[in-house]
Amino acid sequence: MHSLDPAPHLARVRRTTPLVHNITNHVAMNFMANALLALGASPAMVHAREEAAEFAGLATALTLNIGTLSPHWLDAMDAAARAANDAGTPWVLDPVAVGATRFRRQAGARLLALGPTAIRGNASEILALARQGGGGRGVDSTDSADSAERAAVALAREHATVVAVTGEVDLVTDGRRLARVSGGHALMPRVTTMGCALTGVVGAFLAGAEDPFAATVAALTAYAAAGELAAETAAGPGSFAVAFLDALYGLAPDTLATPLADRIHLELTDAP
Amino acid sequence: MHSLDPAPHLARVRRTTPLVHNITNHVAMNFMANALLALGASPAMVHAREEAAEFAGLATALTLNIGTLSPHWLDAMDAAARAANDAGTPWVLDPVAVGATRFRRQAGARLLALGPTAIRGNASEILALARQGGGGRGVDSTDSADSAERAAVALAREHATVVAVTGEVDLVTDGRRLARVSGGHALMPRVTTMGCALTGVVGAFLAGAEDPFAATVAALTAYAAAGELAAETAAGPGSFAVAFLDALYGLAPDTLATPLADRIHLELTDAP
Amino acid sequence: MHSLDPAPHLARVRRTTPLVHNITNHVAMNFMANALLALGASPAMVHAREEAAEFAGLATALTLNIGTLSPHWLDAMDAAARAANDAGTPWVLDPVAVGATRFRRQAGARLLALGPTAIRGNASEILALARQGGGGRGVDSTDSADSAERAAVALAREHATVVAVTGEVDLVTDGRRLARVSGGHALMPRVTTMGCALTGVVGAFLAGAEDPFAATVAALTAYAAAGELAAETAAGPGSFAVAFLDALYGLAPDTLATPLADRIHLELTDAP
Repeated sequence: MHSLDPAPHLARVRRTTPLVHNITNHVAMNFMANALLALGASPAMVHAREEAAEFAGLATALTLNIGTLSPHWLDAMDAAARAANDAGTPWVLDPVAVGATRFRRQAGARLLALGPTAIRGNASEILALARQGGGGRGVDSTDSADSAERAAVALAREHATVVAVTGEVDLVTDGRRLARVSGGHALMPRVTTMGCALTGVVGAFLAGAEDPFAATVAALTAYAAAGELAAETAAGPGSFAVAFLDALYGLAPDTLATPLADRIHLELTDAP
Repeated sequence: MHSLDPAPHLARVRRTTPLVHNITNHVAMNFMANALLALGASPAMVHAREEAAEFAGLATALTLNIGTLSPHWLDAMDAAARAANDAGTPWVLDPVAVGATRFRRQAGARLLALGPTAIRGNASEILALARQGGGGRGVDSTDSADSAERAAVALAREHATVVAVTGEVDLVTDGRRLARVSGGHALMPRVTTMGCALTGVVGAFLAGAEDPFAATVAALTAYAAAGELAAETAAGPGSFAVAFLDALYGLAPDTLATPLADRIHLELTDAP
Repeated sequence: MHSLDPAPHLARVRRTTPLVHNITNHVAMNFMANALLALGASPAMVHAREEAAEFAGLATALTLNIGTLSPHWLDAMDAAARAANDAGTPWVLDPVAVGATRFRRQAGARLLALGPTAIRGNASEILALARQGGGGRGVDSTDSADSAERAAVALAREHATVVAVTGEVDLVTDGRRLARVSGGHALMPRVTTMGCALTGVVGAFLAGAEDPFAATVAALTAYAAAGELAAETAAGPGSFAVAFLDALYGLAPDTLATPLADRIHLELTDAP
């Protein structure tokens, strides 16, 4: 389990303040920026075609989210992903509701073909992206994380990427290894863009990481830990979101290693 | 008064988790999504012309808000409203600051002609939409809800729709019946997009409702009740917004029926 | 020091409820609107080319922020600035990350040439705008406020404007006078768009002000005071943002004058 210890990854984020360039949806922008700032990263939202590629070349990580897509933004995402590839910068794809419309299916396929370092979605989205499922009806997942396991492993192998399927129990695979992270809280899906913001956090953890699989697992573990801590004081989704940002800010590599160890469960196996 | 009991309407929202498709303004997106999630609905923000109509066909309610409009978005709203009409899906128009510019007046008229199931605005907006008033100077209302009563009734009759005029006392009419809902709190207008988010909530209550008038009244009653509850702990508009989401989440059909009955006043009369 | 007393400026904002038209970035919109409402102003976000100039003519102040720019929005900003100039309406430029890309450098130069009443940025942004620095890597400042002093004074003189450089210690100059405001809190840079929202607040204070320099200093003083008050209860950046809006709302001209006098330091000198 030592290789999946999230503490050194969090320490790296805190030490290096990665500049995370996000082309994300309109709903997520503010909360995602706040989550990244709370974590200790430096977020930037830059989406115009006129500058997205240039900016991606300056960033230490890039995340692309198709939640409120338009053709111009898709072009900007494409250019930014190519610039990230050229610069050796890791990037994450968040295929929000990718199965819902023809436009999204095409956008998801186009971005997937550019070779993301990691993909984060719920079970429905990962199934839709792997063309093994019909897709959810929206951004909420209608499939369990487990049912997407085979799709995730296949997707990871075919595209040489890390796939994170988040839900009650999160699943991460690089096609060879498979980790499960349990923890977090039932209020998390009642706060909008918690998943989108997590994609940004995955980006921050990928910056400067040697093993994208371990970095992604660490990001999910840190996120679940902040969720556990936030739930201690939350009276509902409004106060949960506030407490969650406070918890991300207060998260220390030590806390991550020890006191939460009985609440966040992390399992590592070989991918089937 | 029994026919306007909001409890069964809230119970329906909780039981059916309506998928509410919103093409709303940039300021409102996050708070509106959070309000809908807190309430127990499933929000989706999809605004590209390439997919808005297709997505509207999947949703159980649609809401259109012209707060930060552009020509592309207006086209998407038009297509989404037509798809909703074809599918028999209820949709709500929120004519933000409709009287302020020529562009907005044209947009308001164009969407109104498509036959919304309900319209929600402040007094200035409803007056402007009914071409009986000069419109407010922005999103804040400069007319009282009462002064818009005649405009609302005329608008409801001419367009066979439900009109909700929100303010200190809310007014709802379908041209035949007229309800007044008092309650809520003075901090509500100090939190941005409280009205926009209410439009989303009206959409959630319209989904699967037999009587759009009663459903709209129930939405406004639930919203006012959450406002009353939030004000109990709020120290200002920041903490009010947080407590409001918690209150929406915690609202139960029972609470709605009983303990708030002395604070939320609901009156039903014939429209003049 | 009497001429820089912020209290009468806050009293004017409260008395006149200025309509502040903002064409700002997507990340900032919600928080900026909430900050302006909490302060007692009336915010409006209107960015379409089809209406931006018309709306700017109705507003009592205008603010332009290039944080998430696109060519269409830049055209709308240009038209709105010209309309504000024609109407004698004060306007503020917020050159977010202006040094980061070619597109931003051109946008900054274009808007600067239109003659803003005031400019608010961090040290890197002001240096980049004055073509004396290489610009920051993103929205975070990599230069100290002090190092930008010469750039700010030169910029203010060349463009007959007020320049506010915000950081740990804020600096305001009109090329003749120079004020420093210290106060606020270390959590402020951990909350996204605190700077963008401050630009909106500067706009609110400029509305109806005789001396734009004194009004800008008052805006920064009020903002720092709210930051001091918010920090008293905040447990991290999430609760800080909430408490900050409550504090802005609760700020009274009296509080501003007296009890915070030992925590907010204001120095006035001649510009070098």
